[in-house]
Amino acid sequence: MPTAHAYALPSADGELVPTTIERREPGPNEVFIAIRFAGICHSDIHIARGEWGSSPAYPIVVGHEIAGVVEAVGTEVTKHAVGDRVGVGCFVDSCRECPACLDGGEQFCKGNIPTYNSIGRDGLPTAGGYSTHITVDENYVVRIPDSLGLDVAAPLLCAGITLYSPLTMWGAGPGKQVAIIGMGGLGHMGVKIAHALGAEVSVVSQSLKKQDDAFRLGADHYYASSDTSAFEDLKGRFDLIVNTVSADLDLDAYLGLLALDGTLVLAGLPEKPMTFHPLSLHRVRRRIAGTKNGGIRQTQEMLDFCAKHGFGAEVEVIPAEKVNEAWGRVIASDVRYRFVIDTSTL
Amino acid sequence: MPTAHAYALPSADGELVPTTIERREPGPNEVFIAIRFAGICHSDIHIARGEWGSSPAYPIVVGHEIAGVVEAVGTEVTKHAVGDRVGVGCFVDSCRECPACLDGGEQFCKGNIPTYNSIGRDGLPTAGGYSTHITVDENYVVRIPDSLGLDVAAPLLCAGITLYSPLTMWGAGPGKQVAIIGMGGLGHMGVKIAHALGAEVSVVSQSLKKQDDAFRLGADHYYASSDTSAFEDLKGRFDLIVNTVSADLDLDAYLGLLALDGTLVLAGLPEKPMTFHPLSLHRVRRRIAGTKNGGIRQTQEMLDFCAKHGFGAEVEVIPAEKVNEAWGRVIASDVRYRFVIDTSTL
Repeated sequence: MPTAHAYALPSADGELVPTTIERREPGPNEVFIAIRFAGICHSDIHIARGEWGSSPAYPIVVGHEIAGVVEAVGTEVTKHAVGDRVGVGCFVDSCRECPACLDGGEQFCKGNIPTYNSIGRDGLPTAGGYSTHITVDENYVVRIPDSLGLDVAAPLLCAGITLYSPLTMWGAGPGKQVAIIGMGGLGHMGVKIAHALGAEVSVVSQSLKKQDDAFRLGADHYYASSDTSAFEDLKGRFDLIVNTVSADLDLDAYLGLLALDGTLVLAGLPEKPMTFHPLSLHRVRRRIAGTKNGGIRQTQEMLDFCAKHGFGAEVEVIPAEKVNEAWGRVIASDVRYRFVIDTSTL
Repeated sequence: MPTAHAYALPSADGELVPTTIERREPGPNEVFIAIRFAGICHSDIHIARGEWGSSPAYPIVVGHEIAGVVEAVGTEVTKHAVGDRVGVGCFVDSCRECPACLDGGEQFCKGNIPTYNSIGRDGLPTAGGYSTHITVDENYVVRIPDSLGLDVAAPLLCAGITLYSPLTMWGAGPGKQVAIIGMGGLGHMGVKIAHALGAEVSVVSQSLKKQDDAFRLGADHYYASSDTSAFEDLKGRFDLIVNTVSADLDLDAYLGLLALDGTLVLAGLPEKPMTFHPLSLHRVRRRIAGTKNGGIRQTQEMLDFCAKHGFGAEVEVIPAEKVNEAWGRVIASDVRYRFVIDTSTL
């Protein structure tokens, strides 16, 4: 069994520490990937610390924004070859038979196997991307186009697809007014993708600190969420609002910014229940919708789309020894806009 | 000015009393309608009593489920002729210029003029259907097909369109699982329309009392909302759930019954804020949507649809002297399924 270097969290209140983990030899349909970069997603922290109702088996190795190079392939593998640049996202398997799987919605499959904090088909715990290697079924591995750096590609596997999916589903494009709430790891990808799709893009963020960045990434307008006169002016403006923050949200205030048949999508996942007044949906037929990353086919489509438009994520590449510090900064929203671990330092 | 007999509420805590009101002579584009039947909608009571934030000018004449016969027409009227069987619903005018109006969504026009509790283009208070006559612009009057009795047609103008609109918008039809929450004035129309559209229809109601009626009207399944094992069995079942009740609702429980990409529509309008957990939308990409009666074009389409399928509302026709008693019974949910006032008794 190949051994991988990794960083693991030993307990809910501990710090990540270096370790080694066993990866399985690639089976006939599996790909053995040398991970080059792994993005740090806020959900890594929530899940590793058991904050979302997760009950992790410690020590846990997290990370579901994985970019690397194929190092070996099983005898039956046809989709990937040694040397290919590839990515792995939020899950590594699913049942492949249910309507969701057959329709490219593997993320909704009841047999979906998350990249970490789960049990794989082999009966062993899955372990994520804060490691040097991973073995994954070829059908759950996507191609990273040559024009995308592996460092800036890694966060696309979660942050990118999590925004691409609702933006395309709810019609972001020419002539559409799209607002992105929050200008973090998810939000900055929302700005880039919505702009590339041709929509007129507004950002609503806590402060004006990231305004210049937002304009550089493609935003047309930028508002501070504390600006009550802006909220008044923007009433009925947006066809689509994508919330990327997990903080409490005044749903009625944001629903009031939607146009007729507009949709507010919850891409960030607040931990607490949310409250709204039914009249906020009734007056001009609005909607609140959920979303959840994306399927394999759409993830590939998203990567090709980003490559075509010449962008990945905005990243700060860090060595493994800085990962605990980086977690602290993620919690403090002090990152522009995604930490990516250089796994050669593991 | 023609005089109409009417029933008016003199004060928020009063009882409806007989009165007379002035109707205007039909202008060039207006139709003067002899009302035959007027449905009693629960919102009549809420609005007349100032319970929905309304500040009615008393005495107020309510009623927005109006079926009658054209008695006179203005010189320019082309759409209706004397003797035509016609209906008037929740509004009698709108701006006619905004995107909503131009797209047949007059109910969302900011200049929309409700049938009662508003000020008409003539600067006078609008007064509703609990009266013998009404004058309305021809563009806000719909045709009632000959095969529909005027008594059973009246409730279609609000209850019918309020269900037809979301059921058609969200794809109720063959192969779709539709649940109707509540088996009252709105709900029983939901059952009839969803069944006629070809969907498999379930009713979720407080008790099993109306089960036989529901099956007779086209329901395939019936569940008591108190039946927790049913809620367990029905998880992930429905493509569309239309809530027709205004009582508090356990949103998370009902969202859990939705299939992937399913929609919960709020057709009944709870008075209080509603609460849900974001995970309820996230896990299988669900939606909560608002709706609001329907536009003129769609109201005509709905009437033609009901006529084609041979049904109106289930009604209990009452004389005017029973209207106060009927209001009490509406509040107690003691009506199968809509009271309709015979206006010849006014």
